[in-house]
Amino acid sequence: MRYLDEQAIENIAIGAAFLGTGGGGDPYIGKMMALTAIKKYGPVQLLSPEEISDDDFFIPAAMMGAPSVLIEKFPKGDEFVRVFEKLGRYLGKEVKGTFPMEAGGVNSMIPIVVAAQLGLPLIDCDGMGRAFPELQMVTFHLDGVSATPMAITDEKGNIGIMETIDNKWTERLARVTTVEMGASSLVSLYPCDGAQIKQSSIKNIVTLSEEIGKVIRETSLDEADKLQKLIDVTHGYHLFEGKIIDVVRETRAGFNFGRVKIAGLNKDTNSEVIVHFQNENLVAEKNGEPIAITPDLICMVDLETLMPITTEALKYGKRIRVMALPADKAWRTEKGIETVGPRYFGYEVDFEPLEELVQKEERRHV
Amino acid sequence: MRYLDEQAIENIAIGAAFLGTGGGGDPYIGKMMALTAIKKYGPVQLLSPEEISDDDFFIPAAMMGAPSVLIEKFPKGDEFVRVFEKLGRYLGKEVKGTFPMEAGGVNSMIPIVVAAQLGLPLIDCDGMGRAFPELQMVTFHLDGVSATPMAITDEKGNIGIMETIDNKWTERLARVTTVEMGASSLVSLYPCDGAQIKQSSIKNIVTLSEEIGKVIRETSLDEADKLQKLIDVTHGYHLFEGKIIDVVRETRAGFNFGRVKIAGLNKDTNSEVIVHFQNENLVAEKNGEPIAITPDLICMVDLETLMPITTEALKYGKRIRVMALPADKAWRTEKGIETVGPRYFGYEVDFEPLEELVQKEERRHV
Repeated sequence: MRYLDEQAIENIAIGAAFLGTGGGGDPYIGKMMALTAIKKYGPVQLLSPEEISDDDFFIPAAMMGAPSVLIEKFPKGDEFVRVFEKLGRYLGKEVKGTFPMEAGGVNSMIPIVVAAQLGLPLIDCDGMGRAFPELQMVTFHLDGVSATPMAITDEKGNIGIMETIDNKWTERLARVTTVEMGASSLVSLYPCDGAQIKQSSIKNIVTLSEEIGKVIRETSLDEADKLQKLIDVTHGYHLFEGKIIDVVRETRAGFNFGRVKIAGLNKDTNSEVIVHFQNENLVAEKNGEPIAITPDLICMVDLETLMPITTEALKYGKRIRVMALPADKAWRTEKGIETVGPRYFGYEVDFEPLEELVQKEERRHV
Repeated sequence: MRYLDEQAIENIAIGAAFLGTGGGGDPYIGKMMALTAIKKYGPVQLLSPEEISDDDFFIPAAMMGAPSVLIEKFPKGDEFVRVFEKLGRYLGKEVKGTFPMEAGGVNSMIPIVVAAQLGLPLIDCDGMGRAFPELQMVTFHLDGVSATPMAITDEKGNIGIMETIDNKWTERLARVTTVEMGASSLVSLYPCDGAQIKQSSIKNIVTLSEEIGKVIRETSLDEADKLQKLIDVTHGYHLFEGKIIDVVRETRAGFNFGRVKIAGLNKDTNSEVIVHFQNENLVAEKNGEPIAITPDLICMVDLETLMPITTEALKYGKRIRVMALPADKAWRTEKGIETVGPRYFGYEVDFEPLEELVQKEERRHV
């Protein structure tokens, strides 16, 4: 058990945005919300999953929809607690804490706002270990946990409760509601007890986010050392460095769809990388060959500062690095690949683990 | 207080379909559902609004969406009671009866199914005195009653509760949910007490439907006498007789949109009527001049049998009569016209009362 202070929040927002693989919201917006909350209500207690009781009851809170919308539709602030408390009251259970659904600049911070405001602990876990665009793309889903009852609200004050026959129907009905609410909404779903968290969550993601953020915000190291440290902390790979030469993007059906084209710089000159995204980065190809595939994490960062770049912030001329991390093993199972693999998203490619793609790519250059 | 038996149900289904002005569902499907229910659970008690207590609590149940979908997606039967009971439980109140939201072949019958199955009385009133396509088009809305909390379900078992900031948001969020559920859903909304029913409902609509149905199903009268009797019972007008020569129709956004063109027969030869609809018939024009305008009721019936024809049953070659009835005075107020007048539906015409349009039309032919 420990408390999250302002420095911790700054680090978590940045690190979670890195793990958000382009989605999960802008870390600047996210940290402003959380900093305001802890300034007003005091620091938030972080508990590891081992510290919670099996029988206690927990609810996550998250933003749903197209992250780009948040830039224009800034949260009012009361909607996170409203959706969280609504679900708790509906279930008629005492809620003992909250946790993030996914990593991301905003979605790592919303539960901190809720925790601060209600004086509840934050649990050091999430349901993805990264960010994904749809509601059933959660490790709890892989273990058969129901996404509903769920609560959904908007900044205007409309609120709903859903109970669906399966988690894909949760996604379908929540998605059309989100689109009608203005392409973004706040949701609380996958209510669960401590035992389920211990079994199905991705553990220590808040702490990992914090460590990643600390490296990225480090100012005493030179560029190469900092990059190496980031690789070490994340167990990741540096795949490419280059300059964005094209971004195609569309907000449709409550998602940001698109792709970004990057022309190589330095040792990558004469190569080109394309990263395809749906809120999150999903497939990266170099000169037409896949080099990282969902569910493995594809993270784009600023070439020099290593600050994560969300998909809505991609723009022509930006110089960036493409990094990648192996997904949690839960995602590399058969059901995991069926749920979040490349074919689910419509890409005509089979999943191959990042480690193998890296070796293949190395062999090409021997 | 009286009981509704099989004959009453046959009459109500037909009469309510007449008042449904083309919407509210097919009376054959509706009556089959209600007859099955009273065969299994016994006849349903009908109470007039004067017979209920001010403090008792009542909930309507209705189908929402494109009525044409019902033909392919027949109700399973448990969804009416599910949505009704869900809302009751959510509100934590004992529900003392039910009533229809609107007149219509199906929407007059769904509350009878609920009443039979749960042993509750049906109240002799509704919220429209006809049918309209959107959820805020209810006399309770005109008096400031909230449509929510509402419950919504589908035949698969998905269910939701909504609380919205106003009744237009109820319509917006319920509509997208309905579309995603397959273009039709079951809803319970406008929960209210006896005092609100006395103040805001359209009274005796079930009895009026029954009387209309009795005339239409009458076999002892000749055609002219039967038509005159229908005009007398409904305080209506016979506007036109002819043959359908064109139907344009589209199911979009959870509605049936379209228009039907009718070439005159007998004394109306050489004239042409076009009726525009959105689930319900909304504007009728004869040779380019409006002859009946929403909220007044435009009812199309079979030329000989006078059986009501719902918009989804309109087809080339059918010989029909166009009749019209003045709307309840609640709809002819400023707020009424704002809510359900022709301009709300996008027609470039101002509302004129049917009685005046009939006089105008008569003067044209003097």
